[in-house]
Amino acid sequence: MPESARDMVDLRSDTVTRPSPEMRRAIAEAEVGDAVLGDDPTVAALERAAAQLLGKEAALFFPSGIMANTAGVLVWAQPGTEAVIDAGGHILNYEEGAAAAWGGVQLRAVQTPDGLLDPDLVAEAIRPDTPYLPQTSLVCVENTHNSAGGRILPLERMRAVRDVARERGVRVHLDGARLPNASVATGTPMSAWAAEADTVMFALSKGLGAPVGSILGGDAETMQRAWRLRRRLGGGMRQAGILAAAGLYALEHNFPLLAQDHRRARELAQAAGAVDGIQAAVPDTNIVMLDLEDAALQPAALLAALAERGILMTQFGPRRLRSVLHMDVGDDGIRRAAQALREVVEAARG
Amino acid sequence: MPESARDMVDLRSDTVTRPSPEMRRAIAEAEVGDAVLGDDPTVAALERAAAQLLGKEAALFFPSGIMANTAGVLVWAQPGTEAVIDAGGHILNYEEGAAAAWGGVQLRAVQTPDGLLDPDLVAEAIRPDTPYLPQTSLVCVENTHNSAGGRILPLERMRAVRDVARERGVRVHLDGARLPNASVATGTPMSAWAAEADTVMFALSKGLGAPVGSILGGDAETMQRAWRLRRRLGGGMRQAGILAAAGLYALEHNFPLLAQDHRRARELAQAAGAVDGIQAAVPDTNIVMLDLEDAALQPAALLAALAERGILMTQFGPRRLRSVLHMDVGDDGIRRAAQALREVVEAARG
Amino acid sequence: MPESARDMVDLRSDTVTRPSPEMRRAIAEAEVGDAVLGDDPTVAALERAAAQLLGKEAALFFPSGIMANTAGVLVWAQPGTEAVIDAGGHILNYEEGAAAAWGGVQLRAVQTPDGLLDPDLVAEAIRPDTPYLPQTSLVCVENTHNSAGGRILPLERMRAVRDVARERGVRVHLDGARLPNASVATGTPMSAWAAEADTVMFALSKGLGAPVGSILGGDAETMQRAWRLRRRLGGGMRQAGILAAAGLYALEHNFPLLAQDHRRARELAQAAGAVDGIQAAVPDTNIVMLDLEDAALQPAALLAALAERGILMTQFGPRRLRSVLHMDVGDDGIRRAAQALREVVEAARG
Amino acid sequence: MPESARDMVDLRSDTVTRPSPEMRRAIAEAEVGDAVLGDDPTVAALERAAAQLLGKEAALFFPSGIMANTAGVLVWAQPGTEAVIDAGGHILNYEEGAAAAWGGVQLRAVQTPDGLLDPDLVAEAIRPDTPYLPQTSLVCVENTHNSAGGRILPLERMRAVRDVARERGVRVHLDGARLPNASVATGTPMSAWAAEADTVMFALSKGLGAPVGSILGGDAETMQRAWRLRRRLGGGMRQAGILAAAGLYALEHNFPLLAQDHRRARELAQAAGAVDGIQAAVPDTNIVMLDLEDAALQPAALLAALAERGILMTQFGPRRLRSVLHMDVGDDGIRRAAQALREVVEAARG
Repeated sequence: MPESARDMVDLRSDTVTRPSPEMRRAIAEAEVGDAVLGDDPTVAALERAAAQLLGKEAALFFPSGIMANTAGVLVWAQPGTEAVIDAGGHILNYEEGAAAAWGGVQLRAVQTPDGLLDPDLVAEAIRPDTPYLPQTSLVCVENTHNSAGGRILPLERMRAVRDVARERGVRVHLDGARLPNASVATGTPMSAWAAEADTVMFALSKGLGAPVGSILGGDAETMQRAWRLRRRLGGGMRQAGILAAAGLYALEHNFPLLAQDHRRARELAQAAGAVDGIQAAVPDTNIVMLDLEDAALQPAALLAALAERGILMTQFGPRRLRSVLHMDVGDDGIRRAAQALREVVEAARG
Repeated sequence: MPESARDMVDLRSDTVTRPSPEMRRAIAEAEVGDAVLGDDPTVAALERAAAQLLGKEAALFFPSGIMANTAGVLVWAQPGTEAVIDAGGHILNYEEGAAAAWGGVQLRAVQTPDGLLDPDLVAEAIRPDTPYLPQTSLVCVENTHNSAGGRILPLERMRAVRDVARERGVRVHLDGARLPNASVATGTPMSAWAAEADTVMFALSKGLGAPVGSILGGDAETMQRAWRLRRRLGGGMRQAGILAAAGLYALEHNFPLLAQDHRRARELAQAAGAVDGIQAAVPDTNIVMLDLEDAALQPAALLAALAERGILMTQFGPRRLRSVLHMDVGDDGIRRAAQALREVVEAARG
Repeated sequence: MPESARDMVDLRSDTVTRPSPEMRRAIAEAEVGDAVLGDDPTVAALERAAAQLLGKEAALFFPSGIMANTAGVLVWAQPGTEAVIDAGGHILNYEEGAAAAWGGVQLRAVQTPDGLLDPDLVAEAIRPDTPYLPQTSLVCVENTHNSAGGRILPLERMRAVRDVARERGVRVHLDGARLPNASVATGTPMSAWAAEADTVMFALSKGLGAPVGSILGGDAETMQRAWRLRRRLGGGMRQAGILAAAGLYALEHNFPLLAQDHRRARELAQAAGAVDGIQAAVPDTNIVMLDLEDAALQPAALLAALAERGILMTQFGPRRLRSVLHMDVGDDGIRRAAQALREVVEAARG
Repeated sequence: MPESARDMVDLRSDTVTRPSPEMRRAIAEAEVGDAVLGDDPTVAALERAAAQLLGKEAALFFPSGIMANTAGVLVWAQPGTEAVIDAGGHILNYEEGAAAAWGGVQLRAVQTPDGLLDPDLVAEAIRPDTPYLPQTSLVCVENTHNSAGGRILPLERMRAVRDVARERGVRVHLDGARLPNASVATGTPMSAWAAEADTVMFALSKGLGAPVGSILGGDAETMQRAWRLRRRLGGGMRQAGILAAAGLYALEHNFPLLAQDHRRARELAQAAGAVDGIQAAVPDTNIVMLDLEDAALQPAALLAALAERGILMTQFGPRRLRSVLHMDVGDDGIRRAAQALREVVEAARG
């Protein structure tokens, strides 16, 4: 292993970014107050800016995406009701069962052919209105979709999902942890997607590069209920302006960096796909999924061999590796990753 | 509509049976006491008999199968953990989200090709042991399987599921609401299936014909925890011997009747399958699923037309009707149902 | 111990009554159907009769008072909100933590000088409307009050409690397990008390002598929500008319018996109070609390000595025994109990 | 109002402190990584230091005291069980019902004569072991005690509480949000108190002056379970070293400042007590409770008049004001607060 973490090409997630010197300066100089008492001007500024970006009446700053998603689910879904979600959804698979554990909400998993919800599947998954079936209260949409490889759910399809839900009296929560990526990749503003959901979450700590935090936006009354849920969940942080300053900096400066991540993701996918035994689809955004087609390639062994060369990826399913691009991996990192992949695959295939 | 409910051929469910005169006599003469205080001899006798039938250390009498299943899930699954279940499972679809609502348990739905779990699917559905994924605590098996048309999960396959679960440190709860049917149809005792599960539920109020109640069996310590859960859920009934007497009567006298139900189900399926536009698989037990192959056949209209002729069935999915045989439908009922079906289908197809 | 349970004078609770021959006949002849499907005419008749008795739009039959109370709490109190209750309340002390476990409801215990809520205490216990305190959603009133010795909360005081609650936007649930006793003792109809609460529970299986069941009444829309909660809790029973028939019989025939219980309770209290070392307040209804004033009297030893003489009571607090009158204890039973008490106390005091 | 928040003497809470320049430097220079993936060296260092300070095997950094307390309760208390707590306890009154909402835990409130638990009260509050009463799983001790005015529960008394709990098989969670104050005021190390509890929480963001965060410490296995709870609650923060650096700085530098807070609290109490119409007990630590003895003194009016003079306090109960000392209020602040109090009380009393 390289001596310093600084030398690693860390493609495990876009959550691993470290704040830049400029962002650190914003943090150090943040004007703060007790945010639980409503006194932190930087938190207030971030929440205003985020609400505006989403085109929602109000927004709240959360310590994590899991908490923001949990609040987004619980403001709409009563205990014992169902929230429809695709079978690969983050809320279902990577959030420790929070919706059931804290909200008593049953997630109804929908198998999708391409990893993304569509209006017909949603229509079928919403329960008919009978006293003998659970009541459907919510549809959870993820965009971009992590386990589908950073894929974008197109705006029209999302609108169609929303139309189906609305017709049936069901709310929509958008898990937009990487909605900034969808926005940059398509040129469509965040607010356009947010308009198709009742609540929207997005992460400051993924591609945007802030150290900590996510946003939940919605109408003002619902955000008041989310405020209580946040405090009840333990998300009431005191001088949170320390973190919010980084979030504000990220909103102001880091959107353009996402385009670079997307370009590099395409380049990495292209280079990886050129390696015999590996298949890699062209990514919509910043996530590259590498499918190990050659049975000789063992995920754990490959990851270990890559790590020896300073390249960190993660396993994602039985025969798949995931690489996520972000601001701390530059063009040189991509070249090193592609080169290392070639070497370890060739070595493995003998 | 026929003048009296007695004239109806009610195939909506095997839960609709009315107690026979002999069963009513057992009810009227039941020796009772305050069962919450442990003083009801008839409840005690039923629980002993049920435990013996299941080959388990202890058993408890519950007012419903939903409550017995909920207790069976909650004794094993902590909030935030996952219980694996097939996508058509009763606990997932027809129990009001109780596992999530009361236990905070996330149900992980498994798509199955034939409606029944198998060991490979279960192995895949049990989460790897990492802090970033929910923990799997339980597998729920349903046998016979309601929405799969009363199908029997063969004993060997159930054992294989159990072996996979045990290897991974995961418990098995058997939703055996209709396990008596599986037992009678195969000649394999209930205890043989029960041996492949940590807890087992079966219903007294379905094919066995008791008015109210289900059983949960397991080891003695677990049943003590289930006792508290039953009381907390509101299942502590006072002179419950009134109901338990019917349950005891059912255990002693009504198993043989199930064989008749199975024969009649096969006959109804055969007759229905002979109707053009209808397809009906040969049933394993007492449930007949009628698939409407001809697009001219509309489920709601068919059900209404059948009801006019005194035949009650239910819709089950967009293009399927369900008929359930039970002791209150005899050979004449089957003939009437088949005849009515022929008539209404012919009328509908013009 | 007497050879037969029939010879015991069982004063442990009014839940121990056994159905009379007439009630058994009503049970045996009950017209039934599948109540979960809405087909049981006897359940329907009981629910109509109970609603009328309470002066409420609708009522539901539950398998237990715990379940009916739980549903009564959950229809009004969202997770994380508070329900005000007196510190001795049944819901707080004898229902297995159901309100918290199933509803996430925090019970806010109020210390009362006399065991009963009053409007000032309730006004103080309802939280001010600030985001930093839990929100109060409900006040739970118990009438008659079990651990206060069957005391009646006077109608005017109950109305005052309700007025305070209503002013603050808080609902009232009446745990009237023994409301029939309050009604008979005062001559005020059940509906007069019920008018001061949003939901009302009363038990069929206590003084009214039915083997199983309690009623929850309220407005029609709320009772629809309670219907789902009942099913989710596992209270959906099939041919429940078997039990409902006993409940109907009890409503029609057994109210007058409560007056006898009250008279006998007063007689037992008088006889017990005349025993040196014992103090017994004059009871409002059918519960007699015996306070052991002499330190030589040990509750466990007294109870054992009484049981040897065929008298069953229970311990209630460190220095208190509870006797509950009911239809299965007649005048002879009272005499036997008083005599036995004199003997065992004298023996204990040497 | 003074023009700048800097000029206010903010005695509302010790949560309002703003990071000092030195602490901001530590924040700005923090070495960070993805703490959810276990890669943040500063978080790891803080957790090690905190565990050592508490004499516990392990400790975890949480975004808030509410979340750390919630995890502390949930690791020990199963749904439906009871946690004993004094009636004024923070967990019961100021944490949004989190124990019930997320854990299904019933808080059993104990009235105390002096605001603090004692072993006899705890012995009485722990339920006897019967199936008819809830099970007691936990005792929550608060030290110092906020609503009792920052009072210290003496070590011997805490040990006696612990002994009672242990004898009965019940765990102890110490809500030590202000345990650093107890430690500094008595000279007894934090670990001595922590030794009398199974889990211990303390706040970095109160007197110690860090912007955000609390610690939960306990044995290693329990902290693993707490790790999952933290993530499920949404407390998994990415580059949390930004906050942890401030926490580490606080642990290393700010304990001595607490002694100053305590001295100033005594001085403020003395000055306030000298005002006619006000009574103020000598505080144990940094919280001063001002009781309005003169009926002419209205809390809301006093607070408003004080705020006009730049002094912020809070109301705490119907006739009481609370002032909390902390590092951002110096000797001059105390003098200004005392002077303002004299003026507004005199004005109010006419």
